[in-house]
Amino acid sequence: MGKGRLEAFSDGVIAVIITVLVLEMKVPHGPELQALAPVLPVFLSYVLSFVYVGIYWANHHHFLHASQHVNGRVLWANLHLLFWLSLFPFATGWMGENHFAPVPVAVYGLVLLMAALAWRPFQSALIAANGGSESLLAHALARDWKGVASPLLYAAAIGLAFIHPAIAGLLYIAVAVMWLVPDRRIETRLTRA
Amino acid sequence: MGKGRLEAFSDGVIAVIITVLVLEMKVPHGPELQALAPVLPVFLSYVLSFVYVGIYWANHHHFLHASQHVNGRVLWANLHLLFWLSLFPFATGWMGENHFAPVPVAVYGLVLLMAALAWRPFQSALIAANGGSESLLAHALARDWKGVASPLLYAAAIGLAFIHPAIAGLLYIAVAVMWLVPDRRIETRLTRA
Amino acid sequence: MGKGRLEAFSDGVIAVIITVLVLEMKVPHGPELQALAPVLPVFLSYVLSFVYVGIYWANHHHFLHASQHVNGRVLWANLHLLFWLSLFPFATGWMGENHFAPVPVAVYGLVLLMAALAWRPFQSALIAANGGSESLLAHALARDWKGVASPLLYAAAIGLAFIHPAIAGLLYIAVAVMWLVPDRRIETRLTRA
Amino acid sequence: MGKGRLEAFSDGVIAVIITVLVLEMKVPHGPELQALAPVLPVFLSYVLSFVYVGIYWANHHHFLHASQHVNGRVLWANLHLLFWLSLFPFATGWMGENHFAPVPVAVYGLVLLMAALAWRPFQSALIAANGGSESLLAHALARDWKGVASPLLYAAAIGLAFIHPAIAGLLYIAVAVMWLVPDRRIETRLTRA
Repeated sequence: MGKGRLEAFSDGVIAVIITVLVLEMKVPHGPELQALAPVLPVFLSYVLSFVYVGIYWANHHHFLHASQHVNGRVLWANLHLLFWLSLFPFATGWMGENHFAPVPVAVYGLVLLMAALAWRPFQSALIAANGGSESLLAHALARDWKGVASPLLYAAAIGLAFIHPAIAGLLYIAVAVMWLVPDRRIETRLTRA
Repeated sequence: MGKGRLEAFSDGVIAVIITVLVLEMKVPHGPELQALAPVLPVFLSYVLSFVYVGIYWANHHHFLHASQHVNGRVLWANLHLLFWLSLFPFATGWMGENHFAPVPVAVYGLVLLMAALAWRPFQSALIAANGGSESLLAHALARDWKGVASPLLYAAAIGLAFIHPAIAGLLYIAVAVMWLVPDRRIETRLTRA
Repeated sequence: MGKGRLEAFSDGVIAVIITVLVLEMKVPHGPELQALAPVLPVFLSYVLSFVYVGIYWANHHHFLHASQHVNGRVLWANLHLLFWLSLFPFATGWMGENHFAPVPVAVYGLVLLMAALAWRPFQSALIAANGGSESLLAHALARDWKGVASPLLYAAAIGLAFIHPAIAGLLYIAVAVMWLVPDRRIETRLTRA
Repeated sequence: MGKGRLEAFSDGVIAVIITVLVLEMKVPHGPELQALAPVLPVFLSYVLSFVYVGIYWANHHHFLHASQHVNGRVLWANLHLLFWLSLFPFATGWMGENHFAPVPVAVYGLVLLMAALAWRPFQSALIAANGGSESLLAHALARDWKGVASPLLYAAAIGLAFIHPAIAGLLYIAVAVMWLVPDRRIETRLTRA
C-alpha cells in the first residue's frame, strides 16, 4: 500500500486544522486599537497551537519520509492521531477566550497529552510496517527522550495549572521549544546511512 | 483518465469534512469544568462521525488502490458519495446539540443510510471501469455481507429511534465497529494475487 | 512549468468551497422535524451549488488532463475562476435564507454568470499554452455551444428573476442538467486520437 | 528531503486561507439589494486579500519550482510564512467590517508587512538549500527591487493610514499591481538556462 495518499490526506487535515485555529479569533466589532485587547490572549493561544501543529506536521513529514510502507494499522493509528489534533482549535479557543483560566489551561494540556500519547502507537505501527526494531527508523528513535519527557511534562502541567496557570503555560512553551529542533535525529541518520 | 486527481480531490473534501465536524463543537463561554457539560453530547456525536468519515476514507483508499482506471461515471458517483458525506457535520451538530432527541437521531441515521446507498453505485462504477465482474475488485467483494447489512441496520435504527434513541445510537456504534476492520478482504486478495 | 501543483491547489480550493457551502446550513435549535423546515430552501440551494461546483471541478479536471503545459497566464486565469467560485457559498446562503426572493436569486445568477465568463479566459489560456488553435483541446471545443449558451441563459435568468424567481431557478437547473454530461467531447476526442 | 510534501501542505493551507477569507463576508438577513451595502467594503477587502494570497501562492509555486531541495530550515521558514498569511482572514474581516477605519487599515498593513518580512528568510533558506549564491535562484533574484520596495511601502502605508486610510489602501493596491507580474524573472532565467 502506497504512503502517498496517507500523506496527502494527513496534509489536508493538518492544513485545515492549522487554518481553522485562526477562525477562533473572532473579528472585534469596534475599529479602535483597544478592541484588539480581548483578542490578544486568543492570539497568543493561537501562536502556541500553530507551533504545536507545525511540530506535529514536521515530525509526521520526517517519519513518513523515512518509511517505505504503510498498512491498515498505520492508517488507523494516523486517524487516531489526527482526531486529537482536530481538538486543538476547540481547546485553543476555550483557553484564549477565558484568558488562561485554570480549567481551560488544564484541558488544553489534556489535548496536548492525548495527542502525544496518540503519537506513540502511530510511531510503533510505522516501525512495525518498515522492518521492525532493526529498521533505520527504530535506530533513529533508540534514545527518544523527548518522546518520553513530553507526556510527563504535559501531565505535570495539567496538575500545576490549578496552582497557577502560568506555570502550565510556561511548561507548554518549554516543550514546544524542545521540539522545535525535531528532525536532526532522522535527518542525521539518513544522511549517515 | 488518471485516478490521481480523483483521489486528491476526495482527500481534500473528506479532510475538510472531518475537520469541519469539530467546528460544530462551539467553545463554551464560562471557564469552569461544568461549562463543558453541554458540549459532551456534541463531543460524543463528533467521535462517532469522525470514526464514520474515517471508515469511508479508509474504504475509499482501498478501493481506489485496487483500481487502475476511472471514468466520468466514477467521477460523478464519487461526487454523489461526497455529497452525502458533506451532510455529516450538519447531522452531527443537530443530534449533539439536542442531546440525542429522537428526530435528530433518526435524521443522522438517514444521512448514514444515504451515504451507504451512495457507496453502492460508486463501487459498481469502479468495478465496471476496472474489468467488470472478472476483476480482482469484484472477486474481493463477492461476499459483501457488510455492504448489505449496513443499510438494513441503518433503516432499522431510524425506525427504532422513535422507540428509544439509545437503541439507534447503539446500532450506529455497532455498524461502525463492524467496519473498523474493513480492509482485510481487499488487502488479502491483493497479497494472494 | 508542471501542471501538478496547479491541479493540487485548485483541488484544494474547490474541495474547501464545496464543503464550506454546507456550513451555510445552520444547525436548527429545536429537536422537532418542523425545525428543519426553514433549512429546506438552504438545503435545496446547497444541492444546486454542489452540482455546479462539481461540474466546474469535472471540467477543470478534463481540461487539465488534456493539457501538458501551464504558464503564468493560465495560473492567473485559474485564480480568477476560483475567485468567482469562492463566492458560491455566500450567494447560496443568501438565496436559501431568503427563500428564493428575487434579488438574492438574481445575485446568485450573477455569480454563476461571472464564473461562466471567467471560464472563457481560462480555457483560452490553456489552449494557447498547449499548441493553440491546432491543438486537440481546440478541436474538441470547436463546437462549444454549451459554453456559448450558458452565459446567455444566466443573463436571461437574472432578468427573469424579477418577474418570478422560479423561472430563474428552473433555468439554473436546466443549465446544470445540460452540463451534467460534460466530458464526452474531450473524452471521445482523446480516445479517437 | 523531497519538496513534494512541502508543496502539498502549503497548497492545502493557502487553499483554506483563500476560501476562509470569504467566510468573513457574513450573509445579510434582508432579501433587498440594500442589504448588500454593508457587505460591500468587506467584499472589496476580500478582493484585495484574494489577490495578495494569489500572489503569494504564485511566487511560492515559482520558487519551489526553481528549487530541487528543501530541508528543516526551509520547512520552518515556510511555516513562519504561512503563519502570517493565516492572519489575512482576521485582518481582512476587521478592516472590511469597520469600513476602512484607520486602525484596522494599519493592522491590515502590519499583516502584509509581516508576511513580506517572513518571505525573506524563506527565500534565503531555499537559496541556501539549493546551491547558495551561485544558484539559478540567487541569480534570478540579484536585482530584487520589488522584494525591497514592498516592505518599505507597507511601512509607509501603516503610518499614512492615520492621515487618511485611503492613502494606505491605494498603496496596498499599488504594491499588489506591482506584483501581479511576478514570475517573469524566474521564468525567463529558467528558459534561458
